[in-house]
Amino acid sequence: LNALLSASGTTVFTVMSALAAQHQSINLGQGFPDYEGPADVVQAAADALLDHRNQYPPLAGVPELRAAVAEANRRFYGLEIDPATEVVVTSGATEALAAALMALINPGDEVVLFEPLYDTYLPVVRLLGATPRVVRLSPPKWELPRAELAAAFGPRTKAVLLNTPMNPAGKVFTAAELSYIAELLQRHDAYAVCDEVYEHLTFDGWKHIPLMTLPGMRERCLRIGSAGKTFSLTGWKVGYITGDKSLMPNVAKAHQNLTFTTAPNLQRAVAVGLSKPDSYFEGLSTELQARRDRLATGLAALGFGILPTQGSYFITADFSPLGFSGDDVAFCRHITEAAKVTAIPVSAFYDGADAPRHYARFAFCKNEAVLDEALARLKAWK
Amino acid sequence: LNALLSASGTTVFTVMSALAAQHQSINLGQGFPDYEGPADVVQAAADALLDHRNQYPPLAGVPELRAAVAEANRRFYGLEIDPATEVVVTSGATEALAAALMALINPGDEVVLFEPLYDTYLPVVRLLGATPRVVRLSPPKWELPRAELAAAFGPRTKAVLLNTPMNPAGKVFTAAELSYIAELLQRHDAYAVCDEVYEHLTFDGWKHIPLMTLPGMRERCLRIGSAGKTFSLTGWKVGYITGDKSLMPNVAKAHQNLTFTTAPNLQRAVAVGLSKPDSYFEGLSTELQARRDRLATGLAALGFGILPTQGSYFITADFSPLGFSGDDVAFCRHITEAAKVTAIPVSAFYDGADAPRHYARFAFCKNEAVLDEALARLKAWK
Ligand SMILES: CSCCC(=O)C(=O)O
Ligand SMILES: CSCCC(=O)C(=O)O
Repeated sequence: LNALLSASGTTVFTVMSALAAQHQSINLGQGFPDYEGPADVVQAAADALLDHRNQYPPLAGVPELRAAVAEANRRFYGLEIDPATEVVVTSGATEALAAALMALINPGDEVVLFEPLYDTYLPVVRLLGATPRVVRLSPPKWELPRAELAAAFGPRTKAVLLNTPMNPAGKVFTAAELSYIAELLQRHDAYAVCDEVYEHLTFDGWKHIPLMTLPGMRERCLRIGSAGKTFSLTGWKVGYITGDKSLMPNVAKAHQNLTFTTAPNLQRAVAVGLSKPDSYFEGLSTELQARRDRLATGLAALGFGILPTQGSYFITADFSPLGFSGDDVAFCRHITEAAKVTAIPVSAFYDGADAPRHYARFAFCKNEAVLDEALARLKAWK
Repeated sequence: LNALLSASGTTVFTVMSALAAQHQSINLGQGFPDYEGPADVVQAAADALLDHRNQYPPLAGVPELRAAVAEANRRFYGLEIDPATEVVVTSGATEALAAALMALINPGDEVVLFEPLYDTYLPVVRLLGATPRVVRLSPPKWELPRAELAAAFGPRTKAVLLNTPMNPAGKVFTAAELSYIAELLQRHDAYAVCDEVYEHLTFDGWKHIPLMTLPGMRERCLRIGSAGKTFSLTGWKVGYITGDKSLMPNVAKAHQNLTFTTAPNLQRAVAVGLSKPDSYFEGLSTELQARRDRLATGLAALGFGILPTQGSYFITADFSPLGFSGDDVAFCRHITEAAKVTAIPVSAFYDGADAPRHYARFAFCKNEAVLDEALARLKAWK
């Protein structure tokens, strides 16, 4: 059997969600809302099922959604994207990531990644026969280590995989950091796969900046968005890749080999969602910021050290002030069993040795009552 | 960019469907019905959107669908499948194929395939770093060339990729042929990825036999099914892999890296579909057989040589009796433009040199009026 897969464990999200279910614990682990997405988007998906368009849509996506993705790029970032040749709709951001990497990489290439990292990044890079070069961002400030990043680039660098807003760190990359990355990409004639699924989930005035908007980056970036995160419908698995027309034919061919296409009714509903007024997108982040504050305040009151979250669904919390003796894996198991609240050990987002072992990641994309109950349980446990 | 993808053309299905649209031609190319799937299944998908289960389902699929897949295996083939550990739901059979191959193959392995073959088979095998060994079945009889098949197996053979009922050939592998393949798999300690998406679409009393039901094959086969083909809803992209519990953890991990999961409302609707009575499945093939007969009879009357179709959506038709001077690619373009009827050149399903060049593949999964109009147009053109 495939040795890389055989050697890798079950994803931490499945492990912790199963453990949460087993212990009837409040699941603040895997990042999904416990509230519904916009009713009109859901209704549009239901309506679209009933009007006789349930056969293969075009490989690159239904025209309505490609147009909506292009228009959203213009509205939010001033990017001019050709819907006919510069958008490919995928079965979620996971497929988008695999397709984007597959489109770019040849075996033997190197890919620069930032640790902590989402758990499919390294396996996909390795399964494509490429060598990962991992640059570590360290808590609590998650600053970009510029010299290390420059040193990770070399003659075999084909791409950097950049996630901003960043899971689990909650970091939003700054214009200065992005400029530094852009310079390296130009100097090394490399590409960027930009996982921007949390693009609309930023707080406290932080604004997401796509690397693609920087000078010289229009032709070097494959930008990934996700309806799951933008419309609080994580199960739908509708993603989209935006990129220059010089890159997209390979992306389309990768997509052809991975899933071929994505359910047309869901695509058409996501087009409805992307056409919502600015107030929807503002409301999304405002509401989520309130949830973040509720959970952060509560955890801080319990004694956790709270790292700042500028974007995403997640708070990184330092549990060492609580005096728990085990590592983060033990801690997350322990609170699942003893407090009936589940979080994700942050070391699961590290590949190398010496990962930090005193942080737990809590998802705050939950109803207020659920967040309050989780806090009450943690208080009772403590 | 990835050299394999850069070197490969746009899929023939997209090329011919685009050409058909451009010429307002009747599209008997890409294999999708122009009629709707069962109304209750479509309604179930719409209903399921509205009851608050739109977040990530379990990675392996919703329990309802895994149970339904296991039960269908029992009902149709007498296979005992554990729904908890032996089923993984995928975003269509295309992803299932990529995940199954990814689960088994290491770079440097060899994979035995049968030509003519579906157009993602070879790219996926090559992208995984494996070497394809292609065994050709030749029209008009598409017999398994046993000595050649045996010679294609060797010490590096990891798997065979078997498609029965076979696209585009319309061939259903016989028990004797499957036994021969099974023996080779055992002798070489290899696996089979079984693309059985047309399992319920067989005619004239031909019965689909999963390789997995043969002695010694239970632990060696990954069996792929597809809701798209079984319920005439090709756009839904819900597939499922059934395999022994010793193999499925790697399949689940491959799936995790490729899409992670599939829309829960579509999964739940497919579970409703798989629970339909036998009469549904019998009706599906009876109706399709009548469509096949209608198109075959009409094409024969126009002078085409018609190869037998035992299963699938497709008729292979020899156009050489019509006196057309060009090859199959020219023929399919010509009838699209001149007759306004589109078919797929059969040479598109061949990788090697010396592909047959006088066959066109016609899809018959279309309304009777559409088939009749296509025949009338071909008659007028001729
Ligand atoms: C696809 S399951 C993981 C969801 C997620 O993005 C996270 O929890 O980090
Ligand atoms: C996924 S597009 C191709 C559909 C099909 O199976 C065919 O036409 O052969």
